[in-house]
Amino acid sequence: LISKLPNVGTTIFTTMSQLAAETGALNLSQGFPDFDGPDALREAVARHVMEGHNQYAPMTGLPALREQVALKVSSLYGLQVSAEAEVTITPGATQAIFCAIHAVIRPGDEVIVFDPCYDSYEPAVELAGGVCVHQALSLPDFAIDWQMLADAITPRTRMIVLNTPHNPSGALIEMADLDRLAVLIRDRDIYLLSDEVYEHLVFDGREHASVLRHDELYQRAFVISSFGKTYHVTGWKTGYVVAPAALSSELRKVHQYVSFTSVTPLQWALADFMAAHPEHLAELPAFYQAKRDLFCDLLANSRFRFTRAAGTYFQLTDYSAIRPDLDDVAMAKWLTREHGVASIPISVFYQTPPAESRLVRFCFAKREETLRQAAERLCAI
Amino acid sequence: LISKLPNVGTTIFTTMSQLAAETGALNLSQGFPDFDGPDALREAVARHVMEGHNQYAPMTGLPALREQVALKVSSLYGLQVSAEAEVTITPGATQAIFCAIHAVIRPGDEVIVFDPCYDSYEPAVELAGGVCVHQALSLPDFAIDWQMLADAITPRTRMIVLNTPHNPSGALIEMADLDRLAVLIRDRDIYLLSDEVYEHLVFDGREHASVLRHDELYQRAFVISSFGKTYHVTGWKTGYVVAPAALSSELRKVHQYVSFTSVTPLQWALADFMAAHPEHLAELPAFYQAKRDLFCDLLANSRFRFTRAAGTYFQLTDYSAIRPDLDDVAMAKWLTREHGVASIPISVFYQTPPAESRLVRFCFAKREETLRQAAERLCAI
Ligand SMILES: CSCCC(=O)C(=O)O
Ligand SMILES: CSCCC(=O)C(=O)O
Repeated sequence: LISKLPNVGTTIFTTMSQLAAETGALNLSQGFPDFDGPDALREAVARHVMEGHNQYAPMTGLPALREQVALKVSSLYGLQVSAEAEVTITPGATQAIFCAIHAVIRPGDEVIVFDPCYDSYEPAVELAGGVCVHQALSLPDFAIDWQMLADAITPRTRMIVLNTPHNPSGALIEMADLDRLAVLIRDRDIYLLSDEVYEHLVFDGREHASVLRHDELYQRAFVISSFGKTYHVTGWKTGYVVAPAALSSELRKVHQYVSFTSVTPLQWALADFMAAHPEHLAELPAFYQAKRDLFCDLLANSRFRFTRAAGTYFQLTDYSAIRPDLDDVAMAKWLTREHGVASIPISVFYQTPPAESRLVRFCFAKREETLRQAAERLCAI
Repeated sequence: LISKLPNVGTTIFTTMSQLAAETGALNLSQGFPDFDGPDALREAVARHVMEGHNQYAPMTGLPALREQVALKVSSLYGLQVSAEAEVTITPGATQAIFCAIHAVIRPGDEVIVFDPCYDSYEPAVELAGGVCVHQALSLPDFAIDWQMLADAITPRTRMIVLNTPHNPSGALIEMADLDRLAVLIRDRDIYLLSDEVYEHLVFDGREHASVLRHDELYQRAFVISSFGKTYHVTGWKTGYVVAPAALSSELRKVHQYVSFTSVTPLQWALADFMAAHPEHLAELPAFYQAKRDLFCDLLANSRFRFTRAAGTYFQLTDYSAIRPDLDDVAMAKWLTREHGVASIPISVFYQTPPAESRLVRFCFAKREETLRQAAERLCAI
């Protein structure tokens, strides 16, 4: 058997989470909280499981949950979408990404991704027969180089993948960027995949430049989010896609045969909770900003250097003042083994990592005591 | 946007379940129970959700659940498999099928499927760039025509899809069939996808001819099952694949980027329940056989003709004595609208339906009162 994905090994998330478990290190690597989702949300799951909501949901998702997503999109981004035709619930955002790519990418098509990027985009494109064209974001602020992007577009370009707030850097796109992008791809047959799973994690009073705010771009976009990230329950593997009806229709054809539908009692619980607790979304930025600030304030006394993340629940740090001799994978392992804190090296999210990159990513979606303990260990190095 | 799946419309499952809901008909169409999963299983979900098992599970599935699957495979089929290397938990059996196909099928590869067959095989093959070669099972007993199969194999054949117990007919493959198949594909580069989601629903004391019982075939097989079907919780969308280490490794590369992992609290609950209630599996055949017999005994007084299903929770019936003028799609709709019982026409599971096929499928995974009421309505026609 000759592998169809010869370059795929164990993901860095699995590697680092396992190493953390083996060594008993604090796990600030893979992006998940070490606290739980809201009580009312979890109680709602228990209720729906016991009350018998355990059989197939409709293929596109529970109507009540799609309705909540449409309401949210309208109130946050001012876009009126049809819950019936434009919202699809999926078993996780990763699967939403996979289905959106498979809905439009054909053999030979090119997909532009901005490195560093989440590791699922490229294998999904490859399995659809397409080719990823990697464009590095400019350092140090992880911005799109517009001239390079213009040059990268060819007649075979069929999709561009955006990710804002950006994992792993925490950088944000602005509305002006979306305007530029719109001009660039106007009159071209190019779709947009906008990975916005950290849409609610935007700090310092800034605004999330969702593609859902941009009428022109939305017409060709799949906008993806994650209930797991938003409600602190990453293990629920439930996400969604908002896309215009024609795109949603193609996405659903793929979704129908990739998974058919998503877990029923979780969908009921999420619908109930969203209806009863709209304040959850409004409170999220401050909740995570406090965690970022706690971690960063403590880390100010370390030899790590950083600019505070503008979004996501990840903090990038430069360790070149500590172990310039180690590449970032070696550094992440050394930190885990020798200092009891697991992180994610970011070179793995590049096709061609920048020479001399000395950056590791810490996840600050952690309880105060975890963050304090981690910072203490990191400051002692 | 030109569709990549131009032949895909709304699945018959959605169409019929919706029509049943609209008309208030008894829904014996889509394959799901109208009763609930075991109390202890559902209570276990409530417990794990409340106790904080809500973050990412390992990519390949919760070790405790993989261990339970390995134990079951060993005790039922006498095959020792490694929970670590040969068992993968997936978000549903449909997704397991999709990933197995994408793990090995390349553009131009041929996949042999036996019609009538579950409607997800072909789109999954198409999205991988392959071609489905349809071979009709011989009527009336839905058996494989071995000569036709031998003739259908070409140098491009890369996979054969088996399904036993067979949906929609309820027919079973026997061990002798597996021996024949083994001889036929020996020395050829052909993989097997064995869809065994109804593995525990085998009646009249017969034995399930699992590919897991067949050492030679197992070496090239992906064997797929469904916790949703086995534990009466189809809405949980949790299934698994058993495959030799080399095949599991390729399957996991795809799974890793299609969904990454499956829902954590459901996996914990299933692992607990399997450990505490091994009798559930042993009781299933009698439980569903009683339902089959109740339904068939009552239906004996109708003008539907049938042979009792040997497996699955579906009963095929011939309605040619009632409305020979209607094709089966029209018949299924007529039965729903005019007589309040929804079923599934089987022509939709064929590339080329047999001329004059007059068969519809009823799901008997229903409470006694539902089956009585349905039979009463069907007998009155
Ligand atoms: C699906 S693994 C975790 C993905 C993620 O959120 C991360 O970047 O750590
Ligand atoms: C995924 S829809 C239902 C599939 C099934 O079990 C059926 O054949 O009815």
